[in-house]
Amino acid sequence: MAAPKKIFVLGGDGFCGWPTSLHLSSLGHEVIIIDNFSRRRIDDELGVCSLTPIVSMKQRIDVWKSVSGSVLRFHEVDVANDYAELTQLLSAERPDVIVHFAEQRAAPYSMRGATEKRYTVNNNVGGTHNVLNALVECELDCHLVHLGTMGVYGYGGAGFEIPEGYLNVDITDRDGGRHEWEILYPTRPGSVYHLTKSIDQLLFQFYAQNDCLRITDLHQGIVWGTQTEETRRHPDLINRFDYDGEYGTVLNRFLVQAAIGHPLTVHGTGGQTRAFINIQDTVRCIALAIAHPPQRGQRVKILNQIAETLRVRDLAELVSEVTGARIEYRPNPRKEAAENDLEVSNATFRALGLDPITLHEGLLQETFEISSRFADRVDPRHIPARTAWSREERARLEEPDDKVVPFARGAAPGGAA
Amino acid sequence: MAAPKKIFVLGGDGFCGWPTSLHLSSLGHEVIIIDNFSRRRIDDELGVCSLTPIVSMKQRIDVWKSVSGSVLRFHEVDVANDYAELTQLLSAERPDVIVHFAEQRAAPYSMRGATEKRYTVNNNVGGTHNVLNALVECELDCHLVHLGTMGVYGYGGAGFEIPEGYLNVDITDRDGGRHEWEILYPTRPGSVYHLTKSIDQLLFQFYAQNDCLRITDLHQGIVWGTQTEETRRHPDLINRFDYDGEYGTVLNRFLVQAAIGHPLTVHGTGGQTRAFINIQDTVRCIALAIAHPPQRGQRVKILNQIAETLRVRDLAELVSEVTGARIEYRPNPRKEAAENDLEVSNATFRALGLDPITLHEGLLQETFEISSRFADRVDPRHIPARTAWSREERARLEEPDDKVVPFARGAAPGGAA
Repeated sequence: MAAPKKIFVLGGDGFCGWPTSLHLSSLGHEVIIIDNFSRRRIDDELGVCSLTPIVSMKQRIDVWKSVSGSVLRFHEVDVANDYAELTQLLSAERPDVIVHFAEQRAAPYSMRGATEKRYTVNNNVGGTHNVLNALVECELDCHLVHLGTMGVYGYGGAGFEIPEGYLNVDITDRDGGRHEWEILYPTRPGSVYHLTKSIDQLLFQFYAQNDCLRITDLHQGIVWGTQTEETRRHPDLINRFDYDGEYGTVLNRFLVQAAIGHPLTVHGTGGQTRAFINIQDTVRCIALAIAHPPQRGQRVKILNQIAETLRVRDLAELVSEVTGARIEYRPNPRKEAAENDLEVSNATFRALGLDPITLHEGLLQETFEISSRFADRVDPRHIPARTAWSREERARLEEPDDKVVPFARGAAPGGAA
Repeated sequence: MAAPKKIFVLGGDGFCGWPTSLHLSSLGHEVIIIDNFSRRRIDDELGVCSLTPIVSMKQRIDVWKSVSGSVLRFHEVDVANDYAELTQLLSAERPDVIVHFAEQRAAPYSMRGATEKRYTVNNNVGGTHNVLNALVECELDCHLVHLGTMGVYGYGGAGFEIPEGYLNVDITDRDGGRHEWEILYPTRPGSVYHLTKSIDQLLFQFYAQNDCLRITDLHQGIVWGTQTEETRRHPDLINRFDYDGEYGTVLNRFLVQAAIGHPLTVHGTGGQTRAFINIQDTVRCIALAIAHPPQRGQRVKILNQIAETLRVRDLAELVSEVTGARIEYRPNPRKEAAENDLEVSNATFRALGLDPITLHEGLLQETFEISSRFADRVDPRHIPARTAWSREERARLEEPDDKVVPFARGAAPGGAA
């Protein structure tokens, strides 16, 4: 590998942050984790917990040292609210790279109500802006690698392959003159969460232009799976696994539903096409992005971090085939097109050597086994997606619907529908 | 006029907010001013004050009642930080319209340092998002009229007439397929302040789409002048007038410089073309926007609120002709193109009947007279623009420059250069 780097991982206790921290550490980098444990606190607030039993940060770090010999350091800092502390840490440590995962990352949570909408905006926008400010203030020529989302492109389907962040357009002016522009792909976020990542893009564009910051923005698809090479090395290194209606990602939710005999809940027609990536590839992509930084003065480097695109109902059918679970169609709490196509370029990561794991390979089985192993930790009351995007969707969710077969199997406390 | 409306004016103590409040009141609307006096506090922080002596809000309201017979109500609320209070007020009053001026509005102030950058983002983005959330939470079908800025279009010059908010583009995909899209005009903000207004656009787009909020965004040019028909009615109704390097707008600064015998400070070549509007037309435009709201479910209505475009050096020459002041070229503290063209459509306001005041008419003289009348209130130490956009511009400002003739006339305390 290239020379080891000193790397801050903001949000290094989370679903992507923890396995990334381990992966970067295993590659020989010096990793310093920054987290405020907001994700664990939101679990408490929602009364839910990770399907997999995750241990404390101290324990995680101790175990990693014992299995790998490598030291992870940790600082509890709230990036959005402890600006002075963040700046102090950055000036003291002067990292080469900051990997920024420290954002509230669930679309349904971001749409729950005014409190969560405001929290998501203040935390994500305020946090990202603090990081950018701290880099300018500390005069640090550090590479910022940020986790964006495919959702900035919108969920309507472009009608063509979505390029990586930028779009070439032609403009015809009133006098018939033609102008060719390269623009940031016009965003059409579908939730407050996705909105914050669209806002991040504008922040990055500005600070790259005004202060020559070196920034990579990774527009990631929906992550599935839970384990990586490193998290498998000890039970106490296991990654979190969310199955609830707020934080669970669709494929992981299906696998847990199958494991406990709950029907697979498809919202709307299931005709929504989404981009997916396995957690193992997430950590590989972050390492690749770190190894290929943009130059100072260059525009923001935007890459699509995805393996493949699939329709939600095809995904459900695949899980149904593997597990025997039946599929149940529910009203869609999201405001989105019923059906959309999605074609996405991931040319840059492919060119950098990514050969992504796809759904038809073995990991689906492993994720199902984990779901089954920890099935007794599932509280089925938390399975339904209850957050409606607006008044309209709320009314639809509350309508009695004869077609919906309520969940009734097993010993589900509360018998959530 | 149409039926009187109940109107909240957020930021109703400010340079645009106060004359707008009076104008709407004089048209028979019921006006409720919301402000947290942040603009007065920033004056204290910078050690500067309005050229014109402005009285307290209580006094302003009392005098307005005595001269017009109309009642203005006032609530001291920090829109960005007192969400509960804002929501309470909205549910209690259920206004028909909210005019939203409650944002930090100076580009140089927004670039001073990390504190001001962070304040500008948190205040402007957080405040706007709070207003949107409060409308959703209170289920208010209220028309939100927001003051945007021409700066969202960037300062590079498009090479064609800038349309109102949206741009029609053609996209050619990899297979040669053609796609026509209407997109939000791609933003290229030139300061953190302008960045926040670009972010506001994304917030508006999302909430108009997700919650069918009715929103008008007014991309205003640089305002000049100080008095309106209503503020002229009593000395205690006078509007604020900023001449300092942070908050003073270019033409008003030139007029004050001329009034005290300071050379007119042109930054860079003065080849920057900007859009301008007189404060009297600002208040007329707001009234027109209120009278022509978008429908529920319609996209955000975006209008360009400008009268004309001019090059900064032409403006300086005009002021020089009128006043005899000489022009001095200084290094540009902003990161921007040295020269740019700017052509902007203001078709909608023209169609609604706006016949804008242009610079060659009588008001230039009036503004110069006000500058001269209050010249003894000017502290010349506050005239220079000192905020550099980045390290590069800071170095340029600090360079000794033989071409710069330092300011030395009169009794300027401190003899600022």
